[in-house]
Amino acid sequence: VSDLTPHDDASQASNRRPLRVDAQANRNRILDRAEEVFGCGGQTMSTEEVARLAGVGIATVFRHFPTKTDLLQAVLIRRLERLRQQAQAKSDNIAPGEAFFDFFRHLVIDAPSKIAIGEALDEAGGSRNDQIIEASQALRNAVGMLLGRAQRAGSIRADVDLAEVYALLIATSRAAAQANLTGEVTQRALNIIFDGLKPQATSR
Amino acid sequence: VSDLTPHDDASQASNRRPLRVDAQANRNRILDRAEEVFGCGGQTMSTEEVARLAGVGIATVFRHFPTKTDLLQAVLIRRLERLRQQAQAKSDNIAPGEAFFDFFRHLVIDAPSKIAIGEALDEAGGSRNDQIIEASQALRNAVGMLLGRAQRAGSIRADVDLAEVYALLIATSRAAAQANLTGEVTQRALNIIFDGLKPQATSR
Repeated sequence: VSDLTPHDDASQASNRRPLRVDAQANRNRILDRAEEVFGCGGQTMSTEEVARLAGVGIATVFRHFPTKTDLLQAVLIRRLERLRQQAQAKSDNIAPGEAFFDFFRHLVIDAPSKIAIGEALDEAGGSRNDQIIEASQALRNAVGMLLGRAQRAGSIRADVDLAEVYALLIATSRAAAQANLTGEVTQRALNIIFDGLKPQATSR
Repeated sequence: VSDLTPHDDASQASNRRPLRVDAQANRNRILDRAEEVFGCGGQTMSTEEVARLAGVGIATVFRHFPTKTDLLQAVLIRRLERLRQQAQAKSDNIAPGEAFFDFFRHLVIDAPSKIAIGEALDEAGGSRNDQIIEASQALRNAVGMLLGRAQRAGSIRADVDLAEVYALLIATSRAAAQANLTGEVTQRALNIIFDGLKPQATSR
């Protein structure tokens, strides 16, 4: 590198910075399109389709994500982290009871595409790596945080634990994804659970 | 048959009746063992194993059920019909609210092995035939009958429909089967739903 003139150095540096921004933009665009493509379910989804929709070559996708498994893991981690951030935002901005019920409802509505991404990862032979497990755990903790806040505010009965609340969340999420429920039936099912969680409900 | 003496006729008839009883007993034993074997889940379950446990030859199994699919369909139909009969028995013998909640709980506890049988049928490439669909529908109707009875008795709020109640039943059944819930978490999750169904809960 001793043969590089100062001018070359500066030129390289200024070329490198935009490239990095481009690379990050490409990465984000690939993840956005992958999330849409694999979130719709179906068997025919391919990395080639993601590259085409993102407007990049397949080589660019493979530079960022050497395998389909890498891509799907990154999509899932980003989705889980975004959900956790949304839980935090609700906690920061909305009254405790409303924040909890809003976010529970949001997770159930969000579930079908999240489950489809997880299934695509399974089909690609990928595992839930440590980052996915950590992001899942962080999301569960965020729901626990919203639950505790709503319980302290008296909006949810004090005698329920996160274990059964999360079990109901996962159960209704899967049902919404698998059982071809209409939106109205899902909402009415959620209302039954929410009423059961409210302190006015029958005491046990 | 004109060369048969009356004695031969009588002898044949008396031989034939026990054989039919034996055949029916074999069939029931095969179905009992198949229900146990395939209800446990796992990939290694075979018709040979069922024959061995039932104490019959594999040829006997195949005489009653020409394919594994036939066997699994018969197991599932019998299970669904038994559940429907249990719903009727609860309706005949127990107070309306208790009958509904008891049966809901029973279906959830019963679900893992029922789901395993359904999955074995899927794996064997078998479909839900008309009899299975009818038996499923009859079970759903029986739950609707118990629900209506509990609503008329004032034990369950009048403004819930079978659609969302059955959605919650299927959701919790699948969760109990798939999510490795402990029995206690399942019971506590059911209590939340049951409280949400009771008229004392918050009105909507």
